[in-house]
Amino acid sequence: MRMRNLKNTKEILENCSFLITNPLEKKGSWQDAFVKKQPIYLEIGMGKGQFLYQNALSHQDINFIGIEKFDNVLAKAILKMEELPNLRVIRFDAEQIDQVFSKEIDLLYLNFSDPWPKKRHWSRRLTSPLFLEKYEGIFQGEKKIEMRSDNVPLFTYSIEMLSQKGYGLSEVSFDYHKEKEDLIMSEYEQKFSRQGDKIYHLFARK
Amino acid sequence: MRMRNLKNTKEILENCSFLITNPLEKKGSWQDAFVKKQPIYLEIGMGKGQFLYQNALSHQDINFIGIEKFDNVLAKAILKMEELPNLRVIRFDAEQIDQVFSKEIDLLYLNFSDPWPKKRHWSRRLTSPLFLEKYEGIFQGEKKIEMRSDNVPLFTYSIEMLSQKGYGLSEVSFDYHKEKEDLIMSEYEQKFSRQGDKIYHLFARK
Repeated sequence: MRMRNLKNTKEILENCSFLITNPLEKKGSWQDAFVKKQPIYLEIGMGKGQFLYQNALSHQDINFIGIEKFDNVLAKAILKMEELPNLRVIRFDAEQIDQVFSKEIDLLYLNFSDPWPKKRHWSRRLTSPLFLEKYEGIFQGEKKIEMRSDNVPLFTYSIEMLSQKGYGLSEVSFDYHKEKEDLIMSEYEQKFSRQGDKIYHLFARK
Repeated sequence: MRMRNLKNTKEILENCSFLITNPLEKKGSWQDAFVKKQPIYLEIGMGKGQFLYQNALSHQDINFIGIEKFDNVLAKAILKMEELPNLRVIRFDAEQIDQVFSKEIDLLYLNFSDPWPKKRHWSRRLTSPLFLEKYEGIFQGEKKIEMRSDNVPLFTYSIEMLSQKGYGLSEVSFDYHKEKEDLIMSEYEQKFSRQGDKIYHLFARK
């Protein structure tokens, strides 16, 4: 997005053509927010947006939506993107995701989500039973969740919660970057991978 | 078993009071092979038997059965054991497990099973769809499988196959010995743990 003269977050968000400002009103009709009707892939916690943007560039037959909770993080992501016909972003708290989507998502990406290490905060993990229940109604057809993390406690927890919710797991890897080349990565993932940290991956279907 | 004068495998097996020599005939009535009627835990591939024997000593309210395919391995295990009212062993190939048990097993242990690294041998892994299908009929009530391994490819494969078969996973650990103290271990497990290798663990229920 070419707006280097825009200094503050509010201005950036107000001037972004691909930020959907009324997401609650789009529930059930997200295809109308795009140029072409094609599968919708959603990323919760898009951070600086590189993963989402690079995927949207590489896969023009998929519509991508990125959710980010924080205004300032979203503004930074927007500054790095150009408008694309298959890319939309929302500022929203994932806790209300069931109010924003209804039977229209094909795949949910959870990349390097907050591990919430303290047990009393586990319900805030994006693979907690609370969140898995919220996701139930957002998918059209088969429910598909793809996850990457560098955090073992979050990853083992996610294996447990997803399987207990009836998801079948595949592509489970304890060293994903060793197995796959030319992956599209988030900024965070690039940093951790360069440090030599292992990246964990799974694909869940139900 | 006090039979240090017995030199050969055949003699050891013939003189073992707790080796069940006609397992096919016991199908559906394994409780009759024990002194007390109580839950039956089964270990496939008991190896040298330490895990099974120590568990039988420590948990007298559980009946334990160990299966081992090879005569000579089984004989070595028997030599290390004393007769216990809640311990029985069988020489049998796990491929025929569905012909030996029917609705009578409470828990199945898979400890450090053969990883079968080559893809064309994966169906021989004890968590392959082929074996999981064979286990379906052996359990009474809830199906429970507990697994330990030092082999990552076998472990990730098992997470995939078990979850795809509808098992909910819990106690998933990538470093089980760090989390648990005073574990009863197999000889193999002790050796690997002393070397500092990580032990992977999961519990599966369906």
